[in-house]
Amino acid sequence: MCTVIPHWLDKQADLSPNDIAVELKDGTTITFSRLAENSREKARKLVAANVTKGDHVAILSGNSIEMMETIHACSYLGAVVVLLNMRLTAYEMKQQMQDANVTLLIIETEKKELTECRQITFEQLEDLEADREMQLIEEINLDKVFTMMYTSGTSGFPKAVQHTYGNHWWSATSSSLNFGQHHDDKWLVPLPLFHVSGLSTMLKGIIYGMPIYLLEKFDVEEVHDAIMHKQVTMASVVTVMLQRLVNYLGDASYPEAFRCMLLGGGPAPETLLQQTKEKQIPVFQSYGMTETASQIVTLSPKDALRKIGSAGKPLFPAQLTIRGKQAGEVGEILVKGPMVTTGYFNRPEANEQTFSNGWLATGDVGYLDEEGFLYVVDRRSDLIISGGENVYPSEIENVLLQMEEIFEAGVTGKKDSEWGEVPVAFVVADDNLTTDAMFSFLRDRLAQYKQPKEIYITDELPRNAANKLVRHALKKLF
Amino acid sequence: MCTVIPHWLDKQADLSPNDIAVELKDGTTITFSRLAENSREKARKLVAANVTKGDHVAILSGNSIEMMETIHACSYLGAVVVLLNMRLTAYEMKQQMQDANVTLLIIETEKKELTECRQITFEQLEDLEADREMQLIEEINLDKVFTMMYTSGTSGFPKAVQHTYGNHWWSATSSSLNFGQHHDDKWLVPLPLFHVSGLSTMLKGIIYGMPIYLLEKFDVEEVHDAIMHKQVTMASVVTVMLQRLVNYLGDASYPEAFRCMLLGGGPAPETLLQQTKEKQIPVFQSYGMTETASQIVTLSPKDALRKIGSAGKPLFPAQLTIRGKQAGEVGEILVKGPMVTTGYFNRPEANEQTFSNGWLATGDVGYLDEEGFLYVVDRRSDLIISGGENVYPSEIENVLLQMEEIFEAGVTGKKDSEWGEVPVAFVVADDNLTTDAMFSFLRDRLAQYKQPKEIYITDELPRNAANKLVRHALKKLF
Repeated sequence: MCTVIPHWLDKQADLSPNDIAVELKDGTTITFSRLAENSREKARKLVAANVTKGDHVAILSGNSIEMMETIHACSYLGAVVVLLNMRLTAYEMKQQMQDANVTLLIIETEKKELTECRQITFEQLEDLEADREMQLIEEINLDKVFTMMYTSGTSGFPKAVQHTYGNHWWSATSSSLNFGQHHDDKWLVPLPLFHVSGLSTMLKGIIYGMPIYLLEKFDVEEVHDAIMHKQVTMASVVTVMLQRLVNYLGDASYPEAFRCMLLGGGPAPETLLQQTKEKQIPVFQSYGMTETASQIVTLSPKDALRKIGSAGKPLFPAQLTIRGKQAGEVGEILVKGPMVTTGYFNRPEANEQTFSNGWLATGDVGYLDEEGFLYVVDRRSDLIISGGENVYPSEIENVLLQMEEIFEAGVTGKKDSEWGEVPVAFVVADDNLTTDAMFSFLRDRLAQYKQPKEIYITDELPRNAANKLVRHALKKLF
Repeated sequence: MCTVIPHWLDKQADLSPNDIAVELKDGTTITFSRLAENSREKARKLVAANVTKGDHVAILSGNSIEMMETIHACSYLGAVVVLLNMRLTAYEMKQQMQDANVTLLIIETEKKELTECRQITFEQLEDLEADREMQLIEEINLDKVFTMMYTSGTSGFPKAVQHTYGNHWWSATSSSLNFGQHHDDKWLVPLPLFHVSGLSTMLKGIIYGMPIYLLEKFDVEEVHDAIMHKQVTMASVVTVMLQRLVNYLGDASYPEAFRCMLLGGGPAPETLLQQTKEKQIPVFQSYGMTETASQIVTLSPKDALRKIGSAGKPLFPAQLTIRGKQAGEVGEILVKGPMVTTGYFNRPEANEQTFSNGWLATGDVGYLDEEGFLYVVDRRSDLIISGGENVYPSEIENVLLQMEEIFEAGVTGKKDSEWGEVPVAFVVADDNLTTDAMFSFLRDRLAQYKQPKEIYITDELPRNAANKLVRHALKKLF
């Protein structure tokens, strides 16, 4: 049975018209009613740009109120939003837009390298004449796809994770069942809205009727300032950000009203968690991925101090199991729940491999203790998490192998004090090929954060009996 | 697409094993893990009583932990619970059990008048041997029916409202989106669990991981004591209870931590609301019915003082409209949302009349102000609300007309300082029939609260041109 609810932004604009929906560091604010009005107006202008129900519309933008309005505008037309990572190269963006059947790219400022795609800037959109006749969508069907975001996974070929309205809804309500919901909550978003971490908090704001404090990007001073002086009560961060915040905080401490630092994006070092404990920073470790529409496992407030190092238990509507293992045994993490994506766009094979009976095989490795708390031992064996961004070795290897002079390539992560990990490549290549040439080849084809920081030329790569690359053995070659 | 979540009691027992789930006035408490264990054990014993998936099992009990466990036990087997109102006569109960295809009645203490039904008492159930082989249900499908409760409606023939797990889920999460959810919340339940008001709070407790303070029945001293001294933060009451509480409170005031007195069960007099305002009692008016799995419209904390007398706005996932009317115009209230029942059991005609495109025609009358706040002008024109119980005139009339000597019958509500309203009957009857004979006839066939307090013999009843009874004109006959 399909579940239908009123359009969530209209609804919140009705319930809390004059409450603040978004606050920026320069003091700019926008209320729920204004946000809804502007979004509806943008939807009417998108009609003039020929966007219709079911269209796939890409958005390429840094965090801003305009970007939020554009995302909501698409929902008023029933268009699917494809969120592009700003850090990608033009080459990668084109690949994704083609794969996702994007018919229009809405962009902050014109991008010459993407002229093949039909583009419209925020400014150009404003100049279009709004269609006053168009009947905007008033009810949301939770089964419909709202957003898509790319992730590479083990195959090395980026795939679009589809999020239904229901995935986002369940993610938001599950989180509030865990953290509770206070009328004075204000959630800081220093993470990009093109990531599920940022997007999910933006939608929590709409669903809870809670203001979000939106930063263009992470800046340690700005985040510190927001927590200390802007009545922020919750914040989403990744490990590298938390480390910088802790250093910046020094001997000071956060206000008591600050009740949750939600930590995602890869395992946190024990020393960092000890530091936050000493400074009484209310850190909640969590575990999630694009496929789970953000956190699916979170340490609850009552267990936070008792279970340092654990990611917690699956949220109320979610389930978790370690494939074929008992408590204490390490194995693959499987998750299930209404916040889990229904599948990758146009990837029947990957879907068959990844999903079974509603269970998502994460590829990540962990164990449950006797009380059922999850400890993530390693993200999917080959995943590199660099500054909160997922980097997939196979994706980098695939690009390297596009050079004719490279015969074999293997990529792995190397510990890095600033970013957690950085990718490093090993190649078997023609003698005439220089690493400079390789770096230069990669520059246009891979986002900065995916670029190997080092490339080593070697005679052979470690392989197993079946001649399969053994990536973890690459670490021994450092 | 059907939504599946882990069994909610197992889940809360996993998340908060040692937290208090229920507290009684004598100090008895039970934790979530014990509540789950006991309920699972009862489920295994019910197998020995031949209960299987899909069975309809009636429960007849006053509020108790045993009753809660029995309700949950049925969910572990996939049996549907038919909740019987303790105040009904044996005659009414038998009617309902027959109508609902009940195969087993689970009862607090044996009831001789119901021997035709297969009965088992709580005590007898305990003596059965638990089936250790039975695979209990581990996942809840939100589309499945969990409970049924009777309501009469305009037809005068009681109908079973079916509640799916999803109806209860959405009711609980919608309420927390409105009221927020605090980790120190404790909700007082002085209302019967066989009513949707009590049952829905019991399930909120499970879903939020919140203790409920359960009373056997409403008692003004006990409720007062719980609010003053037992750290209760929220309570559900009906108008008649609130009036008594206000009188009892006198010049004292409730602790600040007491943050919500949720008021349901019919419109509250303006004077009472003024009194509560003066005494700073955080009263939240609401509007709902069995069909909406409790409140569907509630005044939010931020509008409570500004909109005294209004029932508020529909909860986040719900919609409301006044059929064919603009703001300010009085008309029939229609509601829609995932907490609304999917229909009455085995009543295709009533379902066709009541539901259309997901909208429920409530029969109640009200208007929306310019800002969209609901003012309930009158419950469905003929409904009498007596001490929070719904009394349907047509049901009483139907029983009266079963007496051969009664030719016509009309019932209406009369204002009553204690109960809000009480039913009063007017009959056209054979000269030889005495009112004593009528009262005596009704005694076994109608619950006490449905019994007319007065019966008047008259020559004719007010009828319109189509010869239809005009019930509101009866009031002129007092």
